[in-house]
Formats: sequence, C-alpha cells, structure tokens
Amino acid sequence: MSDVEKKHTQSSIDTVRRSLEDIKATLGKYQHIDGFLGDQVASRRDLGDEFIQEKNLIGLQDKLDAMHPADIAAILEQMPLDERLLVWKLVRSNLDGDVLLEASDAVRQTLIADMDVQELLAATEQLDADEIADLAPDLPEGVIADVFRSLSETERLQLKAALSYPEDTVGALMDFEMVTVREDVSLDVVLRYLRRLEKLPPNTDKLFVVDRREILKGALSISDLIVTSPETKVCDVMSTAVVNFNPDQEAESAAHAFERYDLVSAPVVDAHNRIVGRMTITDIVDYIREDAEQESLGKVGLRDEDLFSSVWKSAKNRWLWLAVNLGTAFFASRVIGLFEDSIEQLVALAALMPIVAAIAGNSGNQTVTLIVRALAFEEINKNNAKGLLRKELAIALVNGVLWGSVAGFFAWLLYGNIALGLVMLSAMLLNLIVGAAVGMLVPLFLQKMGRDPAIGSSVLLTFSTDSMGFLIFLGMATLFLV
Amino acid sequence: MSDVEKKHTQSSIDTVRRSLEDIKATLGKYQHIDGFLGDQVASRRDLGDEFIQEKNLIGLQDKLDAMHPADIAAILEQMPLDERLLVWKLVRSNLDGDVLLEASDAVRQTLIADMDVQELLAATEQLDADEIADLAPDLPEGVIADVFRSLSETERLQLKAALSYPEDTVGALMDFEMVTVREDVSLDVVLRYLRRLEKLPPNTDKLFVVDRREILKGALSISDLIVTSPETKVCDVMSTAVVNFNPDQEAESAAHAFERYDLVSAPVVDAHNRIVGRMTITDIVDYIREDAEQESLGKVGLRDEDLFSSVWKSAKNRWLWLAVNLGTAFFASRVIGLFEDSIEQLVALAALMPIVAAIAGNSGNQTVTLIVRALAFEEINKNNAKGLLRKELAIALVNGVLWGSVAGFFAWLLYGNIALGLVMLSAMLLNLIVGAAVGMLVPLFLQKMGRDPAIGSSVLLTFSTDSMGFLIFLGMATLFLV
Repeated sequence: MSDVEKKHTQSSIDTVRRSLEDIKATLGKYQHIDGFLGDQVASRRDLGDEFIQEKNLIGLQDKLDAMHPADIAAILEQMPLDERLLVWKLVRSNLDGDVLLEASDAVRQTLIADMDVQELLAATEQLDADEIADLAPDLPEGVIADVFRSLSETERLQLKAALSYPEDTVGALMDFEMVTVREDVSLDVVLRYLRRLEKLPPNTDKLFVVDRREILKGALSISDLIVTSPETKVCDVMSTAVVNFNPDQEAESAAHAFERYDLVSAPVVDAHNRIVGRMTITDIVDYIREDAEQESLGKVGLRDEDLFSSVWKSAKNRWLWLAVNLGTAFFASRVIGLFEDSIEQLVALAALMPIVAAIAGNSGNQTVTLIVRALAFEEINKNNAKGLLRKELAIALVNGVLWGSVAGFFAWLLYGNIALGLVMLSAMLLNLIVGAAVGMLVPLFLQKMGRDPAIGSSVLLTFSTDSMGFLIFLGMATLFLV
Repeated sequence: MSDVEKKHTQSSIDTVRRSLEDIKATLGKYQHIDGFLGDQVASRRDLGDEFIQEKNLIGLQDKLDAMHPADIAAILEQMPLDERLLVWKLVRSNLDGDVLLEASDAVRQTLIADMDVQELLAATEQLDADEIADLAPDLPEGVIADVFRSLSETERLQLKAALSYPEDTVGALMDFEMVTVREDVSLDVVLRYLRRLEKLPPNTDKLFVVDRREILKGALSISDLIVTSPETKVCDVMSTAVVNFNPDQEAESAAHAFERYDLVSAPVVDAHNRIVGRMTITDIVDYIREDAEQESLGKVGLRDEDLFSSVWKSAKNRWLWLAVNLGTAFFASRVIGLFEDSIEQLVALAALMPIVAAIAGNSGNQTVTLIVRALAFEEINKNNAKGLLRKELAIALVNGVLWGSVAGFFAWLLYGNIALGLVMLSAMLLNLIVGAAVGMLVPLFLQKMGRDPAIGSSVLLTFSTDSMGFLIFLGMATLFLV
C-alpha cells in the first residue's frame, strides 16, 4: 500500500470506530441500556431491520460495502467481541463468505457462532467448492449437509475431493479453477475461447494443455500466448516440462517448489497424470504465513488464539504447555533434591547451578534452531548428518572451554575456591556437549517419527540440559568438593 | 514437484555425488594428492581447462547445465566446502549470476570468495540492475565499481536507486521490468506492442497505465486484455484503484498488502505518483521466508550460518548470545547469593526455586509470542492495549492460582511443610504475574524503540522471570519460613 492507501485503511478503521461510538449512542437511546450488546441482540438481521433507517448505521454500512473483504476481516480481528459482532451484523450478506474465508480460525469461529443456518447457507452460496472446504471444519454438521445438497454434481465431487485430503496437503489447498486447452488448436482459437469467458481465474499465468482424457500434456504461458503469432499451434509453443504436484503431497514441498521455481500457478495431477486441480501462489503464501504462525505458536504450546477471547478460554489454551513444563521442572527439582546434603555443606552450589543449566540450554537451542531450519530445507541427509553432529560437538567443546573458563573464573573470584571454579568449568563444558548432542538428535528423531521438529524440540532440550546440568554439576561437586 | 520430479531432483543430487567421487578419484590420479582441493586449485577456469577432456567431468557438467539455477544453488548448499567449490567450478559461467542470486547469504559468500574479478564481472553481466543490487553487499568494492562502468546509463540509474534504499524496504526489493501503456490507445494496439516484445517479464499479471510524464493512471490486467474485445480503449477497461507502494515503505507492509489483496505484481511510485519500479509476488515470497528465517535465527542470537562453515566461524557466530545469557544468569545467581543463609537453613528452597522461575518464564513466553504476532499484524493499538494487558494479567492470575496450587501441593507432600507449600503457591502466582506484565510490555517497548520485538523479548523476559522468581520465592521464604 502507498502511504496514501495506508492512511486510507487506517482512516476506514477510525471511521468504523467513530461510527461505532455513534451507533452505540444511538442504539443506547433506542434501547435505554448501556451495555446493549450481547444476548439482547438475538440475530444480526434483527438489528439490521430494526435500525436500517438510522443514518449513522447506513453510513457505516456504506463504508463496509466499499471495503475489501480482507480489510473487513482485519478490522473484525482488531475488535473486542461485542464491537466485532456489531460490525459483523452490518456486513452485507453477499460479502459474508469472503470475510469468513479471510478471517483467522479463532475469529472465524466467533463470527460463525453468531450466524444462523440460513445466514450460513447464504454465505457459502457465494463460494467455490475449495473455499467451502476451507470453512467446513468450522461449520455445524447440519449446515454442511445442507450446503452439500445445494451444490451441483461437479461441485459436490470437488467438495468431496477437497475434504478427503488431510490438512497441509496439496489436495487440501488446491482449487478447481483451471483453464485447459488442447494441443492441436491454434493460439487464435485459444484466444477466442478465452474471450468467451468473462474473466480468467485469478493467478492464471498459464493454461494447462490436456488431451481428451484430461491427461496433462504441457502448459501454455499467457505471456507466450500474447507475444506469439496467432496462427501458431499450441503444441509448438507450449512447454512440456511443467512442474506439477500430486494431491496427497505435502504442502510444504509444494511451497518449496513455488519458491524455488518462482511459480504463480501449477497443475495438480492424479496417479494417471490426469489433471484434478490447480495450486496458486496465493494459496502458497497463505500456507507459508499460517505455517510460520502455527510453528511460532506451537513452540510455546499454543493453538491459534483470538486476541479477544475470554480469559478462561485463553487460560485453558495455555495449560498443556504449563503442565508439561511443570512436570519437567519437578523432575529437575528432584535431581537437585538428590544432592541436598552437598548443597547444605556448600551453599554456593545453589547459586551456581542454574548457570550451568541455562547456558547449555541456550547453546543447545542454537543448535536446535539451525538443525530445524536445515531439515525444513532438506539440507540434511545420511551423508552429512554425522559430519554435522561432529561439528556441533566441536563447537560445544570450543564454547564450553571458553565460556566455562569465564564462568569458572568468576566462581573462583566470588567464592575464593579454585576447586569450585574448576568444577564449574568442567560441568559447563560437559553440559554444553549434552546440549549439542540433544539439540542435534532430538529434531532428527522427531522428524523421523513424522512429527514437526520445530515443535517440542525445545522442551525436550531444556529438560535434558536442566536435569543433566544439575546432575553433572552437583555430582561432580559431591565427588570433588564436599 | 510431483513425486516423479522429486525423485528426479534427488537422483540429480545423487548423480552429482557419485560423479564427484569419480572426479575426485580422477583428479587424485592426475595430481597425486589426496586432499587436492583448496589452495592447490587457484581458479575454477584452471580446473575447467585442465580437465575438460575428462569424461566424468563432462557428464557432471552436462547434468549441471540441464538444471535450474535454484536447484544448483540448493545442491551447493548441501555440500561441505571442498565438494561445493569443486561443483561450483563446473557450473557454466552464464549460470553463475543466477546461482549466486539463489544461494543463501552465507553460502554465496563462500562462492564469491572463490571467484576472481573477471569471473565476477562475467557473472553480473547476465543480471538486471535490481539483481546486481542484491549481490552488491557481498561483492568486493573494486568489482562493484567495474560493474558500474559496464552498465548502460539507465541501468546505472536503476542500480544507484536500488542501492540507495535500506534493506527491507520496497525500494530494495523492487525490480524495473514494468511494462507500461497509455490510456488512450486500443487493446489491439497494446497487443501488437506486446507481440513485439519477445517475452513478457515474469509475474506480469497487469500492465501499468501511465501518462506522458510516467505518472500512474491505472492498471490493465492481462486477463482483461485477453477477454475484452480488441477495439476497446485501455481507459475503458483499466482499473484505477491500483494498490501501489512507495520505495521507502517497509517491505513488511508491502508483504501484508500482497497477502491481503492476493496481488501478483504492483507498481512502485515516487512522491509525485511517477512509476519508478515494480514489486512482484516472487520478491515477496523470498522476503517472507527470509524474514521468518532471520527471526527464528535472531531469537537465539544467530546470524545466517552456513551449515558447513568452519567450527571456529560457527562458534564465533554463537558467542554474543552466550555472553549475554551468561551475564543474565550470573545476575540471577547473585540474587540467589543474597539468600544463602536461608538456603542453608532450609535446603528444600534450592530444589524448588528453579520451578518458580521456569514456569513463569514459560508462561511469559506464551504472552510474548501472542503479542509479537499481534504486533506483526497490527492488531494492537492504543485503544485495545490496556484491555489486553488486563486480560494477560487475569490469565496469569488464573494460571498462577491453579498451577501454583499444584506445585505448592507437591512441595507440601514432598517436604511435609505446609507453610513451604503456601510460599510456593504465592511465589508462583506473583512470578506468573511478573511474566505476564513483562511479556506484554517488553515487545511493545522494543517495537516503540523501532526494534524487532521478536528478537530480544525472550532474553529480557527470562532475565526478569529468573531474577524476580528467585527474589520473590527466597524473599518470602526468608520472611515466613526461616
């Protein structure tokens, strides 16, 4: 967006907020209540019907009508639940489907919870089969059945197909808006055929060339179609090396291919090379962002959380992670408990032991991050894994000697006990090596188990470096100092 | 990629590896040394000239010639330095520029370090001004001056422009391959004009409509160009509401706009609305990935690291982070040191105190993650920040009572001391609240200081929850238990 447009969006949001204040005041006058929103307003149509005459409301509705569905979704996401539902009631129903598609999962659920069956059916009517499939997990069972009945035969097959693929596969992300042509016709015929369509599907940078059985033969780029003389035959200008995907392939690998080969669209084919759908860069970009988000949330044990959901709901979203960490922390605490006698005799151990655990955790997390990234880019294989492990261990050795010496020196300085300093050095060195080994092996192991190595590696790593750190440091202290 | 294609790529890599073994054997025969790579081989041309007759080498070179530059870059990234430079020497020089562009920063530097001035000049000759600008930070000073002299007047201006914008702005990411048309001509004229170009620039989904002074008037989508009858004038079918950017705008906001409005390309205009460049989805996808990567690396204090760089170089890359964390860990350790008397009297404190620190750190990191995400999507503003802080504090209260009770109960059970359990509960509750406050305020503060809130927030948070955790728990214990 240019600054001008950005200002424009910002000012739309401000307008909505101001209009909301006006509407609240107005509605307040009508209803003579302060907190008029919530259970009092049963259906968004009720509100619409009742106050459709009201000038401010119409003003706001006009603003909303002129906005892109993605902008409306963004505004809704920024609003607390009560304001959100008020504005949602004002969005014209022909935009409902698109706004639902654009909203985040958590916010979408709050919007759907506010709609009745008729509204939901009306919203889905505007959508393609692949878009309905995206909404399906959030729709009530009964509504899906109704939607299914309202579709044409082709759309039903498409919806069934889209729903049959697991999340994060190409099949779940693909759409069905592919434009196909035959190889034996001239470009002129293709152009006349396209002119009969009112509009090309979004992201159409190439047409898919298929035979009578819909088997993929190649692709005709729109660029070639335009610059080549119209008498040329499709087969003379099409490219036959087309990057294509299978519906049950992982979306992640499709994303890599889109990035690597700078694709805008690509055909999806079945086992017989028959074209069944299309992937576009739009879906890929959405996937990449969502994947990155889920990963960063997953690392701290969260699922997608509406910024404005209730305290109770948010608290519950955070429990599993806290419970797991409380468990590992108690385990580490029991390790310390084994050495209570030593600590009683040399209380400096209590102050120094968290350092040994923390630095190895930090260093190990660096290893985890690098290995997880290398796994994502398929840079690790059987041939180089051993060499990488050796390298990480060597780095841990270097850093262990260096930072262990620093820490040991300060321990000596603080407590005037050189033996304590030496134990500190040795324990840090050993625990950094534990961190490197665990930081390298845990992501590889999770990957092998078919799990996302980005999620869970850190918890397991910290668990190891904490417990082992306490064990090594306090164990050595017990042997040599007490 | 379909599985077939994937297999194909994998087999290319295997072929290269096998060929490498062969080449190594062959070169070993010629040079009678084992580790023949390194200083012995001065220039990649030498190697090429000397062994160009060798069958295996030619076989490998043919394979490389048939590959996409991005695939070559990926293969190079997977190889230890010696193998990497050998293969790099075999890449034909007309592909050098593209491979350099596709390689990661760290790997690119190893490749450039291996090239002489002539080779670098030859490599840049194939590239556009915006691509040269991408390589510029890694090129030796002298080479840039030479490259500059070799360019045309227009390209020089473009290169200067591209280099003048800071990293991560639209200006640094834009290209100059925009196709512009006038609004008063017919589509037929546009089509004839395009046919004279041999090929449209990649990602051309729309033509930019400008007037005589290059001022942006609108955009003509290729889709409309194709489906509309050729007699129509451009101004009758072009859209005038074109999402556009300024060159000094942040790339992040452009990325959001591309995602939100599903763009493939968009014009970049100066303050006078004159078109100066073009953003494409390809650049945006690269930016998003790189940004996400840098963020995940930055969180653990790393810059981009070549998987196969030397141990010494990798170790140094990790130092700053370890030093910072060692500093904060020592500070926390000094806090514990303040209470050594209490610990001596009640050694259970030593075993329990890490739990109080850890859980608040985990819980605070959940808050940090949610707030950083909300900041990235501009979901936090003056109106809702206070409400969000209240919510996070309320969640901390709920979780503090719940998990504090669990932890307090186990402490009571383990040590048979109910007062200790109660201190545990209270300390965990208070420290969770510290974690929530710091986890919310630190990212907001970093953002306000113009820094990336994703980087650094966690360190500051852990520092607070560790130090405060020890202070609160040991302080309360000293007051009530000892």
